[in-house]
Amino acid sequence: MEIYDEVKKRWDAIAKPIDGLGDLEDVICKIGSIQSMVSPSIVNRALVVMCADNGIVEEGVSQCGSEVTAKVAFALGNGTSTANVMASDAKVKCIPVDIGIDNDGEIPGVLNRKIRRGTRNFLNERALTEEEAYLAIEAGKNIVKKLKSEGVDIIATGEMGIGNTTTATALLCLLTGADPGDVTGRGAGLSDERLNIKRAVIEKAVKKYALEAGSMFVETKTETKTETKIETKTGIQTEANESYKNPAFKYLCDIGGLDIAAMCGMFMGAKEESMPIVIDGLISAVAALIAERICPGCKSYMIPSHSGRESGLMIVLRELGLKPFINGDMALGEGTGAVMMFKLLDSAMYLYDHGAVFNDNGIKEYERFQ
Amino acid sequence: MEIYDEVKKRWDAIAKPIDGLGDLEDVICKIGSIQSMVSPSIVNRALVVMCADNGIVEEGVSQCGSEVTAKVAFALGNGTSTANVMASDAKVKCIPVDIGIDNDGEIPGVLNRKIRRGTRNFLNERALTEEEAYLAIEAGKNIVKKLKSEGVDIIATGEMGIGNTTTATALLCLLTGADPGDVTGRGAGLSDERLNIKRAVIEKAVKKYALEAGSMFVETKTETKTETKIETKTGIQTEANESYKNPAFKYLCDIGGLDIAAMCGMFMGAKEESMPIVIDGLISAVAALIAERICPGCKSYMIPSHSGRESGLMIVLRELGLKPFINGDMALGEGTGAVMMFKLLDSAMYLYDHGAVFNDNGIKEYERFQ
Repeated sequence: MEIYDEVKKRWDAIAKPIDGLGDLEDVICKIGSIQSMVSPSIVNRALVVMCADNGIVEEGVSQCGSEVTAKVAFALGNGTSTANVMASDAKVKCIPVDIGIDNDGEIPGVLNRKIRRGTRNFLNERALTEEEAYLAIEAGKNIVKKLKSEGVDIIATGEMGIGNTTTATALLCLLTGADPGDVTGRGAGLSDERLNIKRAVIEKAVKKYALEAGSMFVETKTETKTETKIETKTGIQTEANESYKNPAFKYLCDIGGLDIAAMCGMFMGAKEESMPIVIDGLISAVAALIAERICPGCKSYMIPSHSGRESGLMIVLRELGLKPFINGDMALGEGTGAVMMFKLLDSAMYLYDHGAVFNDNGIKEYERFQ
Repeated sequence: MEIYDEVKKRWDAIAKPIDGLGDLEDVICKIGSIQSMVSPSIVNRALVVMCADNGIVEEGVSQCGSEVTAKVAFALGNGTSTANVMASDAKVKCIPVDIGIDNDGEIPGVLNRKIRRGTRNFLNERALTEEEAYLAIEAGKNIVKKLKSEGVDIIATGEMGIGNTTTATALLCLLTGADPGDVTGRGAGLSDERLNIKRAVIEKAVKKYALEAGSMFVETKTETKTETKIETKTGIQTEANESYKNPAFKYLCDIGGLDIAAMCGMFMGAKEESMPIVIDGLISAVAALIAERICPGCKSYMIPSHSGRESGLMIVLRELGLKPFINGDMALGEGTGAVMMFKLLDSAMYLYDHGAVFNDNGIKEYERFQ
C-alpha cells in the first residue's frame, strides 16, 4: 500500500467522523508520503527568508525606498523582525538569507548568498541574466539540501524585499494571463497615486516581455533546435539546459527578483530532497508556480498556507491545484503566513499521533460512503 | 480613545506593514475591547462541549444511532475524545456537559446539566417545551458566568450529539430562508439514501414550522399584544419574556436541540459577562445566530473559527457578519475547529505582545492611506 493510503487508513481508524479534519488529514498524508513515513515528523522545521532588492523600485512602485530591505534584514538577523517573533512562538528556526540586498558588507545573522546588489530595472532591461537567475535557483536548492542533511523535516518559504509584490504580480500576469488591472494590489501599503504607477509599470512590462516570448517560444514548437538555448559562464548541465528552455525561466530573468528565483530553487530542491515545503503569500506562490513550470511535479511537495490580501495569490494557488487553509486577509510577508500554518499542522499531527482509535472506546467505526 | 482603537494603534506601531496580520489584528482588537484591556489575555481558555440527543434520529437521519452520543460523552469525560486531545495540545481546558443525553445515570467527568433525555421527534411534535429550552439557555449562561468567576479569559463552544446537523440545518433554513435542498449536508457521513431521508425530514419540518410562525409573528407586527407570550412553570422574568417573543426562540423550541439551546445561552452569557466566545462549526454557529436574534448585540462577542464542510455554515456566518479564518473542509465537531482557532489567536497575540516597534529598529513607520 502506498504511504499516502496507509496514513489515510490510520486517520480513518481514529475515533472521529471519516475525513473529520478534512483537508488537514490529506496534508498529513502528503507529508507522510513525501517523507516515506507512516508516522511523519514536523518537529524540526525551518523558515528560510530570502531577502533581495528590486531595481524597479526606482519607478516609485512602493511606499518605502530600497534602503528598507537592508534595515529589515538587519532586524531578521538580530531576531527582532515579525518572522523571528512568530517563528519563535511556532518553534520554527528562522534563517534569513541575503540573496541580493543592495548594500555593502555582511549583515550579522544573515546568511550571505548575494548574487548581485539587487536586480536591474526591468522597464529598461532584463532584471537578471540567465546565469544570475540560475545561480539564485542553485542557492535555493543548496539551502534545502543542507537543511535536509541537518535533519530538518519540513521547511517554509518567506521573502523580504521592497518592490517584490511588483515583480511577483508582473510574473503572475505573464505566467497566467491575468490582467494587471485586476491583480495589482497595494503590497505593504500604497496610496492611490502609487498604486496607479505600480499598475502602469506592470502593464508595460507584461506587454513587452509577453510579446518577446510569443516570438521565441512559438519557434520551440515547430523546430527541434530553439533559439532560447541558455549559455552561461558557469556552464549549466545539458539536462538542466533543457528544462530551463521554458517561458517561465525566461520571465524570471526578465522581471526578477532574486528572492523569487531563490525560492523557486527551494521548491525545486524540495522535490529533489523529498522535503515538504510550505508556500507563504503571493511572492512565494509565484516562485512555486515557476518551479512547477520549469520542473513539473514540484507541486506534489508543496503545502499551501494562507490566501493573503493580494488577489493574485488565489489565481496562482488555483493554477497549482492548492487550496489555502488560512483566510486572514494578511499581507505581512517574511513567511509569517507559512509559520502560522505550522500551528494548524501541529494540531492535526497531534491528533494523528495521540487520537484514540475506535476499538479503544467501544464505538463502531464510521463507514465510508464517498 | 476606545480600547479597540488603542489596540489597533499598538498594532500599527509594531514594525510590519499596516494591517499586516489583517483580520487577526481586528480580532485581537475585539478581544481587547471585550475584556477592556489594551493587553488582552487568552491564556486561560476553556472549551465547553454540550452533549445532547435528538428525537429526530429515529427517522434515520444519521449513520449512527443515538446510543453513540453517550459513548462519545464517556470518551469526552475520560479525556480520550478528539476534542480532549486537540484541546490538550492547544492548552484549552475541555469541559463536557450533559445537557440532554438519552441515558441513565452520571457520566464520569461530564458535568450533569441534563434537562431531559433527548428532545422529542420534531416531525411529530415540538422538540422542546418553552420551559425546557429556557432552562437549557440558562444552563449555558450559568456555565459562562462560572467560568468567568474562575478567571477564564476566552471560551469556545462545542457540541456532540447524533442528529444535530439535522436540527441545525432545519433551524438554519427557518432562520435564514435557505433551501433545505441546498444546505442539507452529510454531517458525520451519510449514504445517498440517508441524505435523501435527512433532506426530506428537514423540508417537512421547515414547511410545518415556518407556516405556523407566519401566522404567529405577522400578528406581532400589527398588534401591540402578541399571542406568543411565554408561560413557564418556573416563571421567566417579564424582561426575559419580551426578548423571547421571537421567531428564533419559537423555532428553537420547535426543532431543538438541547445542545443548541445551551450554546445559545453561552453566547448570550458571553455578552452578559463580557467574555470573548469562539464559534465552531454549523451547529454552534446556528446557536450563535439564535442568540443574536433573541438578544441583539451578542455577535460583538463572537469570534468565528472555520468554514467547515457543511455549506450552511457560511450562510450563518455571513448573516452574523463574521468571516472564518480556517478553511479546511473540516467536519469533526466537538469544538475542534474552535480549538484550532486558538492556535492562530496565539500566533497573533504573541506578535502583539513581543513584536518590536518601529523606533526600536530605525525603520520609519508605514503610513496609512486607506
